[in-house]
Amino acid sequence: MKILVINAGSSSLKYQLFDMDKKEVMAKGICERIGIDGSIRHTGNEVEIERNTLFPTHKEAFLSVVNMMTSGEGKVIDSVKDIYAVGHRALHGGEIYKEPTIINEDVIKTMMDLAELGPLHNPPQALAMKACREVFGDDMPMVAVFDTAFHQTMPRHAYIFPVPYEYYEKYSIRRYGFHGTSHKYITQRYLEIMDKAGKPEGTKIIICHLGNGSSLTAVKDGKVIDTTMGLTPLDGFIMGTRCGAIDPSVVTFIANKEGKTPDEMSDLMNKKSGLLGVSGVSSDMRDVQAAARTGNMRAALAIDILVYQLKKLIGGYVAAMNGCDCVIFTGGIGENDTLLRWRVCENMQSIGLYVDFALNEKVKGREMEFSLPDSKVKAMVIPTNEEIMIAGETLELVGK
Amino acid sequence: MKILVINAGSSSLKYQLFDMDKKEVMAKGICERIGIDGSIRHTGNEVEIERNTLFPTHKEAFLSVVNMMTSGEGKVIDSVKDIYAVGHRALHGGEIYKEPTIINEDVIKTMMDLAELGPLHNPPQALAMKACREVFGDDMPMVAVFDTAFHQTMPRHAYIFPVPYEYYEKYSIRRYGFHGTSHKYITQRYLEIMDKAGKPEGTKIIICHLGNGSSLTAVKDGKVIDTTMGLTPLDGFIMGTRCGAIDPSVVTFIANKEGKTPDEMSDLMNKKSGLLGVSGVSSDMRDVQAAARTGNMRAALAIDILVYQLKKLIGGYVAAMNGCDCVIFTGGIGENDTLLRWRVCENMQSIGLYVDFALNEKVKGREMEFSLPDSKVKAMVIPTNEEIMIAGETLELVGK
Repeated sequence: MKILVINAGSSSLKYQLFDMDKKEVMAKGICERIGIDGSIRHTGNEVEIERNTLFPTHKEAFLSVVNMMTSGEGKVIDSVKDIYAVGHRALHGGEIYKEPTIINEDVIKTMMDLAELGPLHNPPQALAMKACREVFGDDMPMVAVFDTAFHQTMPRHAYIFPVPYEYYEKYSIRRYGFHGTSHKYITQRYLEIMDKAGKPEGTKIIICHLGNGSSLTAVKDGKVIDTTMGLTPLDGFIMGTRCGAIDPSVVTFIANKEGKTPDEMSDLMNKKSGLLGVSGVSSDMRDVQAAARTGNMRAALAIDILVYQLKKLIGGYVAAMNGCDCVIFTGGIGENDTLLRWRVCENMQSIGLYVDFALNEKVKGREMEFSLPDSKVKAMVIPTNEEIMIAGETLELVGK
Repeated sequence: MKILVINAGSSSLKYQLFDMDKKEVMAKGICERIGIDGSIRHTGNEVEIERNTLFPTHKEAFLSVVNMMTSGEGKVIDSVKDIYAVGHRALHGGEIYKEPTIINEDVIKTMMDLAELGPLHNPPQALAMKACREVFGDDMPMVAVFDTAFHQTMPRHAYIFPVPYEYYEKYSIRRYGFHGTSHKYITQRYLEIMDKAGKPEGTKIIICHLGNGSSLTAVKDGKVIDTTMGLTPLDGFIMGTRCGAIDPSVVTFIANKEGKTPDEMSDLMNKKSGLLGVSGVSSDMRDVQAAARTGNMRAALAIDILVYQLKKLIGGYVAAMNGCDCVIFTGGIGENDTLLRWRVCENMQSIGLYVDFALNEKVKGREMEFSLPDSKVKAMVIPTNEEIMIAGETLELVGK
């Protein structure tokens, strides 16, 4: 059973073809500069192929993906008929999509209607779904897997912002949360590891998805009860270039002083803040860590802020769930930055977390516990895999 | 030794005259409608007097206060010479004033320079200081006690917002914190109660100042390490009419959709949000509780949000300090709303907090512990008294 997973951006298209029986990636690649000129990088059959070509729209990119998979050196299947279904990553499902959803004309239209909530992602993703349908035919089952869906179990007190209620009614302004596919994957893996698959009742975990964009999620009984990202992925804590939650008067203060429009403020808070804004060095945690090691005080400060905010958020979620079985780290930073993990987890005895310094040092990018044997709260690394999750959800929905 | 405490607003002037030997209030009152027409309500010598009079500026109000205190039925002193010093409440001391400060021309000027950070409070307070000087003479020692001062011990990782660092350098945008005089008073009272006055080392407390405006503070070793209010008193969690910290993209989203300017957004978030905005009923917690009891779902939601945010913030500060000796409730809501206190403290065993339901019910507006005897973390009510604190700080600085 082969499932193709698509992650489309406004000018890019990433894909992975999974053999679901072997749980293996058969081929993967990326089309870039769609609408500008175009290039594709494809890996399949143990070769990597790069080619410049013209992609006026996502449709031509899909044609090129099909071509790469079905012919030439990188060929992995005979025809698209070998593909059982296509799973699309979708950003914003609003309050409408609480589960993975079979894509039809209505879904594509609704994706577009939700563009206001996900202006950078929903429209190109909807266009890609349309183009994919044209290339693969109406018979190919396609599934949309929403980044917001897993968070739809949050209670109202966690998702309503204390602004006038009419804005929730009028514009659907509320906390949605993102990285849902990752948080769901981690939840499922944790339950499997703990031999509780299908029996999530009583479990309490905190998932720290730390990458260029980062979010924390409190998952109780296998269901999200809170998450740090909000209406958009700007909310939460310090990220590569995003500021996270701040005193909202900072927004109006800067806007006033610098004469910035809401869009300019949004740009500033999404692209020029965070680790980059504080350190002045880079949005990449590795660069910031390197600069801090050479004595750059602002780089050190940026990391201090991240560590401190993470500690507070973890403590907050422990209180929210009245307990925690395990704090799980994932994402590029969460999986690999051993120093950050150590700093977040040290001096957390008050919440029952005791980690093993040496063990933590050994864990990079692989599944492993690094808490001390008698720690009340466990600490763990579980590498995330959103693509296999999308493939799995697609297969489950389409039916085996 | 008599100390007069002044709390000036743009059109009002509150005052209290303390006998510091007996720690008693000798007289108190309020001038209102300054700059409009004017009225004074004075209580002294066990009588209450109300009078309409003209207050073109704060100066005439001060003259009226002196008149009330030194003559007629409400007379409590023979002349202003009987007053040892005047203490002024001051909102924003920026990064300049870390301690109570003797008021001179420079201080009044600097208060004005800081108007940008406290636009509603600093200018009238500076004007009141000037007027007070004119009425009481240059020889009267006057002290400014800043709402921000007690928080100046915060470490950088707690006060720097992760926006571009240049805004901290250029506009002093950072977390300042407010209610400092209240938080300092509570800290000192706690230390006295615990017989640790002057020996704060090793203590860890969380102070929940809950009123129409609310803030939480984490105090370690007698020093603030974090507080919820930020650049302005808007930051933190849901208050009477303020939204607290929210996804900053909500600010730009609403501004865009409704075509609102930064000032209009500021107004919306400061005056039309919070309990009022969510419940649609009132900004007063008593009204909201009453509405919730009659089945108003949005009123119940507003309270649920407050309870939930408080739990998370307390948990966060426990993690930040790696422990907590006592959670202290103060302010109008903190001192009197037994149901809210119960809801915040129940199901907090994970952080070591166990409270006595019946005992909590009994504590209204008086100093008392309401945790169970073996609770690792204590819970306590300590009524705040900012005026006596200002009087005390004034006396201490001027010298006994």
